[in-house]
Amino acid sequence: MNNVRTLSRLGRRTEAPPISWMMKIALGRPKLISLAAGFTDNDSLPVAETAGLIKAILSSRKAGKPSLQYGTTEGDPRLRELTGRLLRDSDAAAKDDPAYSADRIVITNGSQQMLYMVTEALCDEGDIVIVEDPTYFVYLGILQSHGIKARTVRLQEDGIDLEHLKSVLDQLRITGEIKRLKLLYLVTYYQNPTGINTCFQKKAAALKLLRKYEKASGHPIYLLEDAAYRELRFEGVDEKSLLTANGGKDRVIYAGTYSKPFASGVRIGFGFLPEPLRTAVVRIKGNHDFGSANLLQQILSGALGSDVYEKHTIRLRARYARKAAVMLKAIREHFPEEVEYMIPQGGLYFWARLPKHMKCGEGTKFFKACIENDVLYVPGSLCHAEDPARRKPDNTMRISFGGSRLENIPAGIERLGKVIRAEM
Amino acid sequence: MNNVRTLSRLGRRTEAPPISWMMKIALGRPKLISLAAGFTDNDSLPVAETAGLIKAILSSRKAGKPSLQYGTTEGDPRLRELTGRLLRDSDAAAKDDPAYSADRIVITNGSQQMLYMVTEALCDEGDIVIVEDPTYFVYLGILQSHGIKARTVRLQEDGIDLEHLKSVLDQLRITGEIKRLKLLYLVTYYQNPTGINTCFQKKAAALKLLRKYEKASGHPIYLLEDAAYRELRFEGVDEKSLLTANGGKDRVIYAGTYSKPFASGVRIGFGFLPEPLRTAVVRIKGNHDFGSANLLQQILSGALGSDVYEKHTIRLRARYARKAAVMLKAIREHFPEEVEYMIPQGGLYFWARLPKHMKCGEGTKFFKACIENDVLYVPGSLCHAEDPARRKPDNTMRISFGGSRLENIPAGIERLGKVIRAEM
Repeated sequence: MNNVRTLSRLGRRTEAPPISWMMKIALGRPKLISLAAGFTDNDSLPVAETAGLIKAILSSRKAGKPSLQYGTTEGDPRLRELTGRLLRDSDAAAKDDPAYSADRIVITNGSQQMLYMVTEALCDEGDIVIVEDPTYFVYLGILQSHGIKARTVRLQEDGIDLEHLKSVLDQLRITGEIKRLKLLYLVTYYQNPTGINTCFQKKAAALKLLRKYEKASGHPIYLLEDAAYRELRFEGVDEKSLLTANGGKDRVIYAGTYSKPFASGVRIGFGFLPEPLRTAVVRIKGNHDFGSANLLQQILSGALGSDVYEKHTIRLRARYARKAAVMLKAIREHFPEEVEYMIPQGGLYFWARLPKHMKCGEGTKFFKACIENDVLYVPGSLCHAEDPARRKPDNTMRISFGGSRLENIPAGIERLGKVIRAEM
Repeated sequence: MNNVRTLSRLGRRTEAPPISWMMKIALGRPKLISLAAGFTDNDSLPVAETAGLIKAILSSRKAGKPSLQYGTTEGDPRLRELTGRLLRDSDAAAKDDPAYSADRIVITNGSQQMLYMVTEALCDEGDIVIVEDPTYFVYLGILQSHGIKARTVRLQEDGIDLEHLKSVLDQLRITGEIKRLKLLYLVTYYQNPTGINTCFQKKAAALKLLRKYEKASGHPIYLLEDAAYRELRFEGVDEKSLLTANGGKDRVIYAGTYSKPFASGVRIGFGFLPEPLRTAVVRIKGNHDFGSANLLQQILSGALGSDVYEKHTIRLRARYARKAAVMLKAIREHFPEEVEYMIPQGGLYFWARLPKHMKCGEGTKFFKACIENDVLYVPGSLCHAEDPARRKPDNTMRISFGGSRLENIPAGIERLGKVIRAEM
């Protein structure tokens, strides 16, 4: 009577998220500076704003009771309307563009639940999803738990390597595995973990490329655009989403969230979905929880329907830009020249690469030395899917400026730099 | 390129919940009185209380920011502590009883998410779950979407028919299917849909019985005690939960919720789980959403840590008792003698049985006549699992007093009675 016969295959396959043992490490070392957590900036959380919004909701006869009652599974109509408008404006799309229609939107518990349900709706055990190399590690957890295979495609400075994507697709066609390919998963804005921002032309080209393989696959191949960090750009122009691309309305699932740009404790995300996927996802959500909490949805409606949301995101962008600048300055000061890194234009992360011969994965001497020096990062190896086609890199790290206190960033980077120098 | 090849097996199997087409009917008929919805009483929602709790949270330096930040996947430690204490007190258990320990608890999005994740963690496609006949229809949706088979056991006035349960288990042992049996699912308090309250002796006997078949099954057979309506008793004594039973700590998953006794828009539920299930469920939740919204959890902590929760449930019990009494009076006045029904001692539902020759399922003339007469109920047939062992009853209905306005209940029952008389 062991776990093997007790739990389902999914139950047995689902691994502890790396974040949980890292949190335990952090708890045991009070002086530790964690550059690992993907938490959002604590000092800029909109406490007073949220208090104001809730006060307005609960003192209103019209909104008070519905906010505490069940709603619909797909989400509050007003929030879906406002979400459609927000995205339409971000994409500078026409007012009547049907891609942004509220009836294509489903509200979820963070965008994480959308990633989970889309994967459930599309993929059987043994199916294939193409992911960026590296990618968001919790999404890898979803794939792994469902027995879905990942195929990896390299990243370039402006997003996915199209040549490589084509060769992976060709390979899948040759082996016949293309019939099991369901999805390309891209984190298109200030990617977790690399910070890379995918240019519109590239992702549109990837979408176009997928279409060419549908005849061989015998079914649609979707592109899941995870835009969790979109609103966190420091400056410059916002790349348009794939909803504006040719075929975007039919093959793109756009997953967004209010957790990152507003408040992560509010846990409201959303997706734009084509049929038959939207119907399938709404039904699945009916079984998960038949609707996200109305109170949270109304807080967001209030924020979006007033200037609260926009003002907050403007403040937040400046805040993260400042934290990134502080981290960059510290990296320049404390990291040896041999360490390569990219300078993010948004999001929460730096991605650094140590010289090839160095290893910094979870079991390594390097990682342990960092903990002993009271600094924590996410080993990059966690963000690389299992893929027989290449050896998994083990000399990269995700360094987050999002959750750490501004004043701790220089010391954290200094400690990290010290270990790098010592281990080189 | 049709849905058959687009969606996963789960995606294809997941059906539209009956509640969604019923809601559409209701929207199209403004004068309709719905005795179908499982909504909670709108007039007693704790609007002012929630406003007060949130004000306290967001004006406190200690609670304000954490309430808007990510937390842990298993849920806020204080809420788990308070939940353990609440259940321990309800069960009159000893202060140090390890069954109520906070580290056995996982906080979820309503108890619905707990039902989903427990089923994911335990059951593969083709596995078997024993359910009451009838049972909570959304749980049947979960089973169906995962390709899990249901076996049904009759209900008696005080809960599951133990003789019948034994014969179903024996039958599964004879056919060897016992190896696929993972779970017995019981809605033990004021059951949805029948209102039946299961006496402690019966459920404890069921648990004991399951243990005897574990040798044949080769793995633990769990009992999922869904206690969603426990707090909604009108009067009398609270039956103890299975956590107090022999073996309860090892084999019982207790799923509870604050949606029903506090506010359904807050959507916070919880489960007490034995290992290795608890670990599996926490990991699965890590993939679903890595934690329920902290703000909602803190509202509940505030309610439970003060007298707000208890005062509210006392008010709510009186409210539902009154609505049930009004409905009973109307039933006595308007239903012909031939209609059998049970008088609930708690919860939100009456369950009525028409004479055998009458049919009232969703496609029937009777159901249509009710809609034409502007009254809606849940056809009982939706609450009966597919089971080759018996013919599915089609002469029962779930009539809810929970969500309907008190003043509409007599007119709703009068309309229903009119159709019954006309169709007899």
